[in-house]
Amino acid sequence: MNPWSGNNDRERWPDLAARYSTIGVSSDHETKTSMIDQPDPGAVEEYLLSLQARLCEALARADGGGVFGEDRWTRPNGGGGCSRVLEEGALFEKAGVNFSHVHGAALPASASAARPELAGRSFSAMGVSLVLHPRNPYVPTTHLNVRFFSAQKPGAEPLWWFGGGFDLTPYYGFEEDARHWHRNARAACNGFGDQLYPELKRACDRYFYLKHRDEARGIGGLFFDDFSRFGFARSLAFMQAVAEHFLPGYLPIVARRREHPWGDRERAFQMMRRGRYVEFNLVYDRGTLFGLQSCGRTESILMSLPPNVSWRYDWHPEPGSPESRLMEYFLVPRDWLAADATSLDESLLAE
Amino acid sequence: MNPWSGNNDRERWPDLAARYSTIGVSSDHETKTSMIDQPDPGAVEEYLLSLQARLCEALARADGGGVFGEDRWTRPNGGGGCSRVLEEGALFEKAGVNFSHVHGAALPASASAARPELAGRSFSAMGVSLVLHPRNPYVPTTHLNVRFFSAQKPGAEPLWWFGGGFDLTPYYGFEEDARHWHRNARAACNGFGDQLYPELKRACDRYFYLKHRDEARGIGGLFFDDFSRFGFARSLAFMQAVAEHFLPGYLPIVARRREHPWGDRERAFQMMRRGRYVEFNLVYDRGTLFGLQSCGRTESILMSLPPNVSWRYDWHPEPGSPESRLMEYFLVPRDWLAADATSLDESLLAE
Repeated sequence: MNPWSGNNDRERWPDLAARYSTIGVSSDHETKTSMIDQPDPGAVEEYLLSLQARLCEALARADGGGVFGEDRWTRPNGGGGCSRVLEEGALFEKAGVNFSHVHGAALPASASAARPELAGRSFSAMGVSLVLHPRNPYVPTTHLNVRFFSAQKPGAEPLWWFGGGFDLTPYYGFEEDARHWHRNARAACNGFGDQLYPELKRACDRYFYLKHRDEARGIGGLFFDDFSRFGFARSLAFMQAVAEHFLPGYLPIVARRREHPWGDRERAFQMMRRGRYVEFNLVYDRGTLFGLQSCGRTESILMSLPPNVSWRYDWHPEPGSPESRLMEYFLVPRDWLAADATSLDESLLAE
Repeated sequence: MNPWSGNNDRERWPDLAARYSTIGVSSDHETKTSMIDQPDPGAVEEYLLSLQARLCEALARADGGGVFGEDRWTRPNGGGGCSRVLEEGALFEKAGVNFSHVHGAALPASASAARPELAGRSFSAMGVSLVLHPRNPYVPTTHLNVRFFSAQKPGAEPLWWFGGGFDLTPYYGFEEDARHWHRNARAACNGFGDQLYPELKRACDRYFYLKHRDEARGIGGLFFDDFSRFGFARSLAFMQAVAEHFLPGYLPIVARRREHPWGDRERAFQMMRRGRYVEFNLVYDRGTLFGLQSCGRTESILMSLPPNVSWRYDWHPEPGSPESRLMEYFLVPRDWLAADATSLDESLLAE
């Protein structure tokens, strides 16, 4: 399960040094990178494009019926992207995997509000965003994002940082799945310091939270932003580790749940829970707001929204029902790896 | 059709002077109001409660099947409200008519961003909000809101203002309906100056606009905010005129369209267009943001969201189809009363 061990995993995620020697970046990139730890946007872009292609290939295979369409677009103010969406598949009611790389003269408010030193800088932002909405309510919805920002101003050193993470939004919870998801998230942080998983797990719980509902969006995972602490090459390696751990986290859960029988009751619950997903993305999500404020391509930004959604006034699940258990047990920040005492210093996970 | 003429209309909207002599406000209120044009929150609240009751009664009668539930709630930080929702009716898939009256120590950002003189003031806000989501896609969705704010600070005169309006969101457009809707909106402004309808019509077009789609939410109506220009009593009378013109604007359209046959195609289009409604309310709507930011009752605030909604990636109607005509003809700011040249100085409507 850990992609950091075993020969097959090398294929899934060729290591950073190997990538630098094979990807077709300019010699200028190579020189800078090998000499000192300079930011190398070309290398990030190359990786992100490869990531998007590999994710779509693996997810179409997992779906078994649907095909990813492909829309290449350019942005009037600079940059562009490639949106890939699969709709009405066998497994996925809607699956989107977007790449974008945009530039702008000034960072929009959603990006600079918390960091005044960024105001007035021009920026470049690239990333891959994935949202999967399966049809079967027993298969969780999930989200992956990895991104790289740089912000320039004449006469000043460029600022740069990585961001991203992955999180899981089940409709019906399974402890086994939650533990697998978080073990895999911890594995993504392996080699980057023992404190990293608990730190980013807590950040994820904090970020994917609906204040107006006092409710978590899902069972979390990893979330990082303004991330440059390891220098460029190693921070990129960490972003890659997160991205490469996404499928090993998600696909085993799909395999376990995709044949689970479901009916109208489960579907109705899924559609209502998807309403929470819409609320989060449109009210709070920084990526969505950044995209809308920076005049991104609306259809690409909003591909994250679920295909069919419902809102009922003041609906509450019956006490003791599986629907109620989702809210009471799974959608509460929880140390899913507490039982892994043999392999984990539990104090790391304490708040 | 014009509620300002004929005896029956007096019943529909007893005039302001008559209301002041009959409503059970304290003698303090009466004294202030009769002596000078002091703000009288008690009179506004009394009117709003009566408005809510009358709207629910008329809409339940129009529905012919559903019943409005009633939830009274209090807000931990001050105030409360009464939410009335009808779901799965014969006409309305979801209809909500809320009254709320809340207080707070400081106005939230959504209310004070544009008016720095309000920062740091305590506030009181009361209003009635209505959103109707009919099942038949030929019957338009509609929204009415009327509200009264006051903002206090020790040693300063209280500031107060009214806001509100109504707007119509058709799925399939009819010129006859659009003209009726806007004639009625103009009638609501009768007696308040010839400039008022064109001014508030333009404000409505500007407000109910999805920047990220470059698309109007519907065919507009009236929108006003920070409204105190006529002094308290006459500004209240204007707010009442808007509120009382809502049913005469909407019910004749319902009567004309409710038996119009519809099928899967119309339903699918309606569900996608409802997605735009969700986008507007969660991304832009000041009332929604104010409610969420001021820790209002979430279920009451989000009763505005449609019951069943869908998003499809990058869907566009077939050129020449009725669905395409909605977007190209109806969802474009337009002078619906241009043909009424005999009764209207057209220059008033020029931008």
